[in-house]
Amino acid sequence: MPTRQGRYTLRLDSCPSIVSFAAVVGKKEGEGPLAQEFDIICDDTTMGEKTWEKAESRLQKDAVNRALSKGGLSASEMDFILAGDLLNQCISSTYGLRDLNIPLFGLYGACSTMAESLCLGSIMVDSGAAGHCVCVTSSHFCSAERQFRYPLEYGSQRPPTAQWTVTGSGCAVVAPSCKAPYVRAVTVGKIQDMGITDVNNMGAAMAPAAADTLKTFFMDTGTTPDNYDLILTGDLGQVGSQLVEELLQRESFDISKRHSDCGLLIFDIKEQGVNAGGSGCGCSASVLCSHILNKIQHKELNNVLFLATGALMSPTSLQQGESIPGIAHLVHLSSTSYQDDCTINGH
Amino acid sequence: MPTRQGRYTLRLDSCPSIVSFAAVVGKKEGEGPLAQEFDIICDDTTMGEKTWEKAESRLQKDAVNRALSKGGLSASEMDFILAGDLLNQCISSTYGLRDLNIPLFGLYGACSTMAESLCLGSIMVDSGAAGHCVCVTSSHFCSAERQFRYPLEYGSQRPPTAQWTVTGSGCAVVAPSCKAPYVRAVTVGKIQDMGITDVNNMGAAMAPAAADTLKTFFMDTGTTPDNYDLILTGDLGQVGSQLVEELLQRESFDISKRHSDCGLLIFDIKEQGVNAGGSGCGCSASVLCSHILNKIQHKELNNVLFLATGALMSPTSLQQGESIPGIAHLVHLSSTSYQDDCTINGH
Repeated sequence: MPTRQGRYTLRLDSCPSIVSFAAVVGKKEGEGPLAQEFDIICDDTTMGEKTWEKAESRLQKDAVNRALSKGGLSASEMDFILAGDLLNQCISSTYGLRDLNIPLFGLYGACSTMAESLCLGSIMVDSGAAGHCVCVTSSHFCSAERQFRYPLEYGSQRPPTAQWTVTGSGCAVVAPSCKAPYVRAVTVGKIQDMGITDVNNMGAAMAPAAADTLKTFFMDTGTTPDNYDLILTGDLGQVGSQLVEELLQRESFDISKRHSDCGLLIFDIKEQGVNAGGSGCGCSASVLCSHILNKIQHKELNNVLFLATGALMSPTSLQQGESIPGIAHLVHLSSTSYQDDCTINGH
Repeated sequence: MPTRQGRYTLRLDSCPSIVSFAAVVGKKEGEGPLAQEFDIICDDTTMGEKTWEKAESRLQKDAVNRALSKGGLSASEMDFILAGDLLNQCISSTYGLRDLNIPLFGLYGACSTMAESLCLGSIMVDSGAAGHCVCVTSSHFCSAERQFRYPLEYGSQRPPTAQWTVTGSGCAVVAPSCKAPYVRAVTVGKIQDMGITDVNNMGAAMAPAAADTLKTFFMDTGTTPDNYDLILTGDLGQVGSQLVEELLQRESFDISKRHSDCGLLIFDIKEQGVNAGGSGCGCSASVLCSHILNKIQHKELNNVLFLATGALMSPTSLQQGESIPGIAHLVHLSSTSYQDDCTINGH
């Protein structure tokens, strides 16, 4: 059962398991440093579909189907699917998941969606409300560019602080505790807005949210950055990554030795021309649901704080002079459960 | 604790209470049959803001603040806020709720959002994951028209099957069981797509989802329409309302005597020029969080099935030739709890 730890953190007493996971990515991501980790790399980023939006739906569908098949699971066993994406009215999720016939909670957390869905799915399983929850999200470079910035055909220039939307999808299936990776705790984020208005500097807009959620988690649990092998932010990129470390340093939390960012892991930022790094819902989702969960499963990582960060603006809100509010949700993943702790301490 | 009843329905054993609620609407809604029931009627639908989107954010902010103040509650006591809306990237929620400093689960369920947030909030409270959950959504005629159809200045004609997006917001605060209205059970819907492509006939697109969720609930619980005082769909309007009754009739469930629709309750459809009735997230939210919850609180209604229905398409998906998938989530509201049943039966 979920129990409060401090004001904002929920300790998941049963430690739900991520029983299966999969990541599907595009060509460019498949040429990056994590190439060996992904389940499917699509050489043709149209996925054989007629539009970029349909291609993105296809990514999400393929990620779910692969996660189910890897785990020997069927869609009919799933109690809920928790899904969302960046496109207007979350159409990647709707059309990608339409045929699965699983009760759907549609989410909107921008690039924080993978963590949001894992928070909710894990709470549901820990509380007994669900047996199996499918958590999934996606993004596509081409659908995101034309919706949020310019049509690709326009060939716009990108400033050095801009990030590159990942073409990819990640899916994790949460189920009652049985094996690593386990979900030990979650901290749901609050909107933070420091007045950033530059849409080409999303990392800076999201960093305060990541810092706030991390600080909250450390205070709630009485732990410090040194208690974790890895503190993994979603897609702050180069600018935001530096900023979150600085913001936390001011609060006397030094995460610099443990911190990494999915947007910096998925691409070789010197070689692949992605400016400040990767971004998009699919960035943190595909890195988590391959590289990171693999390492936790094999006990190469034992205690990971995963924080996907989202920028909650829209082109319309920016045109109307609004700043960019950020949000970050935290999931504490581990190779051991609370039950394991007792066993280890008992011996 | 939530326990499964049948395959898809969750019985909420503790029967969480809706401890406070409020509805804020625009001028036209304030001239309709439910005028006396709303907490705030805004004569100026700009809400004193410079854009329609900011006006909609303001509706949502006002609804939350009114619900909190009516219940003698403060934002700092709230554990989660579950919110979403129709606008791209859900900006009404983000900017409306930005200053509240409550952990946010952003939702996208189109016009099903009020039921989606109530489902999640009630599960969270019933499972002990949360003490207080704020559930809120909104829509605004002017922001919706220009995003989904045409700018108002264009003066487009509307066919008889078209519905009128409600300018309004409804907010409900769910907390541990203490008084009516109680949430007894929830059924989370699955995407249903019958191939409808006419954006001016949303009722027809959403009716199959409402029928599917209702049928699922009746089968899971072994109840029939006659066990309820009111079966209230979200915003099917005239066309969809007739259709859902026909679809269920084919399955041998006659809801016609108990069925009503928020889109038909909020306007006088003969006098107010709204064609097939009201629609939008704010339609079911504002009708539920005034008229309906008031009646349950005063035991004028005792057993209500509330089903908000959503059409999960976007203008882009329609332009690309996709049909309109629908979804409907069900919340069983009651003036009595399971505990009351035992007491009554015991005497």
